[in-house]
Amino acid sequence: MLKGPFLEKNFIGATTNYDEAEIVLIGMPYDCTCSNRPGTRFAPQQVRVESVGIETYSPYFDFDIANKPFFDAGDLEFPFGNAEKTLKIIEENTDCIYNDGKKILGIGGEHLLTLAEIKSIRKKYKDLAVIQFDAHTDLREEYLGEKLTHSGVMYRIAKIVGYDSIAQIGIRSGQKEEFDFMNKYHTLVKSPLELDKFKNRPVFLTIDVDVLDPSLMPGTGTPEAGGMTYIELINMLKCIKDFNIIGADIMELAPDIDPTKVSTATACKLIREVLSFL
Amino acid sequence: MLKGPFLEKNFIGATTNYDEAEIVLIGMPYDCTCSNRPGTRFAPQQVRVESVGIETYSPYFDFDIANKPFFDAGDLEFPFGNAEKTLKIIEENTDCIYNDGKKILGIGGEHLLTLAEIKSIRKKYKDLAVIQFDAHTDLREEYLGEKLTHSGVMYRIAKIVGYDSIAQIGIRSGQKEEFDFMNKYHTLVKSPLELDKFKNRPVFLTIDVDVLDPSLMPGTGTPEAGGMTYIELINMLKCIKDFNIIGADIMELAPDIDPTKVSTATACKLIREVLSFL
Amino acid sequence: MLKGPFLEKNFIGATTNYDEAEIVLIGMPYDCTCSNRPGTRFAPQQVRVESVGIETYSPYFDFDIANKPFFDAGDLEFPFGNAEKTLKIIEENTDCIYNDGKKILGIGGEHLLTLAEIKSIRKKYKDLAVIQFDAHTDLREEYLGEKLTHSGVMYRIAKIVGYDSIAQIGIRSGQKEEFDFMNKYHTLVKSPLELDKFKNRPVFLTIDVDVLDPSLMPGTGTPEAGGMTYIELINMLKCIKDFNIIGADIMELAPDIDPTKVSTATACKLIREVLSFL
Amino acid sequence: MLKGPFLEKNFIGATTNYDEAEIVLIGMPYDCTCSNRPGTRFAPQQVRVESVGIETYSPYFDFDIANKPFFDAGDLEFPFGNAEKTLKIIEENTDCIYNDGKKILGIGGEHLLTLAEIKSIRKKYKDLAVIQFDAHTDLREEYLGEKLTHSGVMYRIAKIVGYDSIAQIGIRSGQKEEFDFMNKYHTLVKSPLELDKFKNRPVFLTIDVDVLDPSLMPGTGTPEAGGMTYIELINMLKCIKDFNIIGADIMELAPDIDPTKVSTATACKLIREVLSFL
Amino acid sequence: MLKGPFLEKNFIGATTNYDEAEIVLIGMPYDCTCSNRPGTRFAPQQVRVESVGIETYSPYFDFDIANKPFFDAGDLEFPFGNAEKTLKIIEENTDCIYNDGKKILGIGGEHLLTLAEIKSIRKKYKDLAVIQFDAHTDLREEYLGEKLTHSGVMYRIAKIVGYDSIAQIGIRSGQKEEFDFMNKYHTLVKSPLELDKFKNRPVFLTIDVDVLDPSLMPGTGTPEAGGMTYIELINMLKCIKDFNIIGADIMELAPDIDPTKVSTATACKLIREVLSFL
Amino acid sequence: MLKGPFLEKNFIGATTNYDEAEIVLIGMPYDCTCSNRPGTRFAPQQVRVESVGIETYSPYFDFDIANKPFFDAGDLEFPFGNAEKTLKIIEENTDCIYNDGKKILGIGGEHLLTLAEIKSIRKKYKDLAVIQFDAHTDLREEYLGEKLTHSGVMYRIAKIVGYDSIAQIGIRSGQKEEFDFMNKYHTLVKSPLELDKFKNRPVFLTIDVDVLDPSLMPGTGTPEAGGMTYIELINMLKCIKDFNIIGADIMELAPDIDPTKVSTATACKLIREVLSFL
Repeated sequence: MLKGPFLEKNFIGATTNYDEAEIVLIGMPYDCTCSNRPGTRFAPQQVRVESVGIETYSPYFDFDIANKPFFDAGDLEFPFGNAEKTLKIIEENTDCIYNDGKKILGIGGEHLLTLAEIKSIRKKYKDLAVIQFDAHTDLREEYLGEKLTHSGVMYRIAKIVGYDSIAQIGIRSGQKEEFDFMNKYHTLVKSPLELDKFKNRPVFLTIDVDVLDPSLMPGTGTPEAGGMTYIELINMLKCIKDFNIIGADIMELAPDIDPTKVSTATACKLIREVLSFL
Repeated sequence: MLKGPFLEKNFIGATTNYDEAEIVLIGMPYDCTCSNRPGTRFAPQQVRVESVGIETYSPYFDFDIANKPFFDAGDLEFPFGNAEKTLKIIEENTDCIYNDGKKILGIGGEHLLTLAEIKSIRKKYKDLAVIQFDAHTDLREEYLGEKLTHSGVMYRIAKIVGYDSIAQIGIRSGQKEEFDFMNKYHTLVKSPLELDKFKNRPVFLTIDVDVLDPSLMPGTGTPEAGGMTYIELINMLKCIKDFNIIGADIMELAPDIDPTKVSTATACKLIREVLSFL
Repeated sequence: MLKGPFLEKNFIGATTNYDEAEIVLIGMPYDCTCSNRPGTRFAPQQVRVESVGIETYSPYFDFDIANKPFFDAGDLEFPFGNAEKTLKIIEENTDCIYNDGKKILGIGGEHLLTLAEIKSIRKKYKDLAVIQFDAHTDLREEYLGEKLTHSGVMYRIAKIVGYDSIAQIGIRSGQKEEFDFMNKYHTLVKSPLELDKFKNRPVFLTIDVDVLDPSLMPGTGTPEAGGMTYIELINMLKCIKDFNIIGADIMELAPDIDPTKVSTATACKLIREVLSFL
Repeated sequence: MLKGPFLEKNFIGATTNYDEAEIVLIGMPYDCTCSNRPGTRFAPQQVRVESVGIETYSPYFDFDIANKPFFDAGDLEFPFGNAEKTLKIIEENTDCIYNDGKKILGIGGEHLLTLAEIKSIRKKYKDLAVIQFDAHTDLREEYLGEKLTHSGVMYRIAKIVGYDSIAQIGIRSGQKEEFDFMNKYHTLVKSPLELDKFKNRPVFLTIDVDVLDPSLMPGTGTPEAGGMTYIELINMLKCIKDFNIIGADIMELAPDIDPTKVSTATACKLIREVLSFL
Repeated sequence: MLKGPFLEKNFIGATTNYDEAEIVLIGMPYDCTCSNRPGTRFAPQQVRVESVGIETYSPYFDFDIANKPFFDAGDLEFPFGNAEKTLKIIEENTDCIYNDGKKILGIGGEHLLTLAEIKSIRKKYKDLAVIQFDAHTDLREEYLGEKLTHSGVMYRIAKIVGYDSIAQIGIRSGQKEEFDFMNKYHTLVKSPLELDKFKNRPVFLTIDVDVLDPSLMPGTGTPEAGGMTYIELINMLKCIKDFNIIGADIMELAPDIDPTKVSTATACKLIREVLSFL
Repeated sequence: MLKGPFLEKNFIGATTNYDEAEIVLIGMPYDCTCSNRPGTRFAPQQVRVESVGIETYSPYFDFDIANKPFFDAGDLEFPFGNAEKTLKIIEENTDCIYNDGKKILGIGGEHLLTLAEIKSIRKKYKDLAVIQFDAHTDLREEYLGEKLTHSGVMYRIAKIVGYDSIAQIGIRSGQKEEFDFMNKYHTLVKSPLELDKFKNRPVFLTIDVDVLDPSLMPGTGTPEAGGMTYIELINMLKCIKDFNIIGADIMELAPDIDPTKVSTATACKLIREVLSFL
């Protein structure tokens, strides 16, 4: 036998025992409906590799994720170009996770994939609410005739959970019709207080990394100036950390777009923060 | 005939009818007097290409530029290395635009080129004022003996419109003599209120993209830490949006310096915002 | 009216008159089935932009493309994520080109798209042969269950034109089964002499830029060491330049992967060479 | 003889006369114990080269460094892989600088090197205090068994000058034990007022550039989101500019990680600011 | 349980059963003595990640590595800055591999590490010969006073196996003294025939990727123009593929230096070729 | 005094004594007439910095440049945007060098600058011949109306030394008229034998680095596929190394275009080779 010591091939701090895990981190490398710059398919594997560069201790949440049992399942294998089959694979695996009494932490991939997670989780949690951090409304009914598109994921999700069960934070880009939709249904949240309505409901937290300002997070397909600083995002997360978060995902990182790797390092930190309160 | 559909080769939302246009967007690809890192000559074409990635609707100004007729004239062709001829070509074309009763939206290229626009527009608007967003004073009388230089464009402009007809915002770099000049003539503006003196005058708006912090806008030749965030810039623009802006330009983007393309995407947004109130 | 002079927004040397054109250059920005690094969707627009950096005169073929009337139709607009609809749009536009008595020069985009061109052209030329320059066999019957994939385009094409009507040059990567296929049907060509069988037939020429060594052409999704030099490729093209080439495409350039832009500049030259004998 | 004019090979504004200099700028190109991304060895030479792009006048401190005599000694030559010998070379040269009645301005290289400067200066200033700007605690007793590591430099320094003689600003990453250490010894400073205790003592100022947010300073080995803006850092420096600063260093810039060169340009400005009050 | 399908976290084609493996692929991420550009520490993990982009079938050797049982042990964890301990860890693990009757395929990391493999293997194979592919002689007795340096690894190895038991291929850089050494001991090999003397001896094959021309392999710390093409390297390897190769390593890839990732993709292919005949 | 040891700030192997030098290496950082991608202004300083990464010994010419006294004068300071003044500064400094009985080794900067060197040297050597290595003919009489342009430098030089006193090697791009010129005056050299006519004349050697294939030398403004390998260039240089070379320059390196720095490293080697026989 080899003597080692060896570095882990998993996200830093992960347990290698699926059964004892409370949370399953799962990579979802798909980006085929994205409308601008692709490359989010490489996020899960790069996040895993770069995670060795961060500490397992979060000073923001005063928590060390080495103390929370989570399992890094690796990356699902998808048929490139076939969104429907891809969504089905995610839904089936999410079913497994919740049947096993665990929570998902999905690592995208494009934002459309969140739809499959929600479809699965909704089966178990009928009262599900969704909190979205994002630069974009993602409320298009269709994009160039396509219904399955990352620009319309929140529209599809709203159809499932109800317009009044979604909250959108950080939005600063969309068509006029989409902004009208947000105004009509009051989905756009500007103050943390507005989130309190979801306090006693099961909440899925979906973070599109482009909610952060592209100065910090250039590594994403459709960067939008005018976004949050890291501290502003952390402060919002602190407001919901005691909610009943029953699953989460972190989407739309495209590592190769940012040659400095700061985007990936920041996504690793963000995963750590979410793990600390999930 | 071809059936299409085809993507436009113009800036997103542009009309293809010169006559019906109120605004003429014109590319000015020249960077031969720049003192540090060149590359702004590639800005207009890359801005045109990348504009497909932004929405035509601006949530900041609640306006969709698809509703404003502007014409994308393309890029002027300049003799590299000859600043005088280049300035002449710009001046002549600016003359055309104003003779046709339209406004210019110049896309640089280096900041020196603004001089030619001002020379032309001053013929029509004798009371012209100039509002400059910039990291640098651009007040050098000469640079290594050269009078036509991007470091001295505001000095040349002040000679034309008068020291009291320029306002400078965001300045954080220059020689001591240049800061003394700003103090002497009170050209440096710190609060939007100070701009009210130009409220009833024709105003040309010139934005050097390096007024933004290089964290967001690294794609420029002489980046200066300590700049504005996008929101701070938007808020300043909101203060002047109802002024009589009779022309504008957006200068000094050097796209290739920023491999993430965030700088170019941000410049596209900025062009959209300026179009929305020009 | 504006005085100019203005730079063209088209590929260098193009005519702006569709009717007088013999060749239609058409951009096909789609990359959603690619299995490794995406980004070929940006090739046509960057090729157009960078073409200004090359000469219109080819010393290799002693020909100036300014003397050959070709029309740059721009880029087709595709529904991202929907390969079938995308192929249909290409097929319909190719139909138009051949109905108008012209030839296509397609600029990819991923290699799958060639399938649509062949489908269209085969309607007119029943005896069609296809010469492929490529690093990969592209002979997979399916990839992760998908039939429409860039890894299987030549398999699909062979089904249409017949196994004995394709010739493959530069191949150095594939599964064992694919190499067995090439051996069985003698599709792999090592000497130009082997191409003479197509001398009197209508030939479609499809060039995957990864046939070039990745030292020169890193800007492609699946680079394979051991490829051709530019001169070797030119010499092979000289062998077929007097064939009855009735259409061509140049596929799989992914400009952003190569920050030096040499890949794009080289693709521009290659387009010029192909135009010179098409 | 040559006529010139020639550009300097030194940091902008430096004197070429060692004897008249009050400050000695010295490059320390070593990065062999760094735990994540290396490359700080290239900082001093790139800072020297890029300094030509900044002004010698600082509007923040209203001071022109051309008026302060400082000597650019160049880069020390180190034996790669041997931290002990490297520290010794630095210590000996720092001894020279202080024996000659001058102050050091060290340009790293990795943060471990500060240890050697402190060892030397402590011989002269028994009451030495150290103010550290950093994202990381650097308080590890050892890293994978190694005591000489950039992750533990402040632990080693605290052993020399005493726990109550260090002040840490901007810290946002470390192990739980390290944060406990900071709490126990009150080394973490949140308000400038807390620094007043060092007002009448000789102070060494050590700045790890990663104290700045990685949006502005991606060019460093372990970037940590949530850092200071440039203005926030300047404002903190203004609070101590009248202290008895008897030496300083600026560490951990890794220029090649940031292809935009904004990180290096910002480090040049920071060196200018420190020179203006050192 | 999860349903999958999941992508592997190992090098493509690897078995997950150590016991049945004939070859152990082991990552050695250390680069602390390198004299120029560091970064080889990231090679093993990136090679693992990128391997998914190549085929398991080598057309050059007509072999599919999925048919050869090799185990991907992952990356050893080293104390950064301590070359001696690092070498000891490698030697101990190499001991394990050979005690278990298997062969090593080391993935560097810097070339110095080969010394530890040789030390271990020499215990078992007293008649060991070493064939080195490299741009550099690596024959320095010391570098700035250090004996353990990547510039001197072949000198150290020659001391162990004897000057007449090493063969050097592709060398094109070194000091005059090093070239004199090669001439004196006839270690430089120009024709494959010269290698025949090692035909009946156990041979360790060490490949510094900089033996390839930097046009193809820019991702290495000290690139030297004038190197081999991939085909030339393959042809040399074909000459020794039937030798008694009892171990091998592939060293000095620095992935981040090459943003196109062609260097890493090429290293993956090279690993495949070596696996096919090891 | 400082103890050191310090690294040099000059090109590796240079003497610091002007008087004893036979050759003067002089940086010429100007790129304002270049027609495509600028950035050659940064070549001399980066070449100086990166030279530390190469050996002083050339195995190709079996010579160590540490044995040849050459002086690194640094970079001339030019007025950006003013080609005439820039050429005058170069001419005056070249006059100095030849009046002092030394030879110039110019490091560009754009190719136009060679004109000033030739103007100066021709005063002393009436029988001067010029050997040009280049991808481009550089024979344009004017470019967009400008006579002083890097595209026309050989035309200007031919006017001075005579059409039959120039030899062009590696040319593969130009307008038809330029190729006709080369044919008419037999300036294009394909075999080294054709150079023998210059054997007994004073020869200036001007190397545009784009003569090398862009696979190896992407760091230049107008890369042209189909160029020389490094070995092919070396072999050509060996043919003329015993000529009476009375000066040389190496032009058109644009370091920032090539993020791998291989282009700069290769230029450093090329400078070493030229120094070895100059």
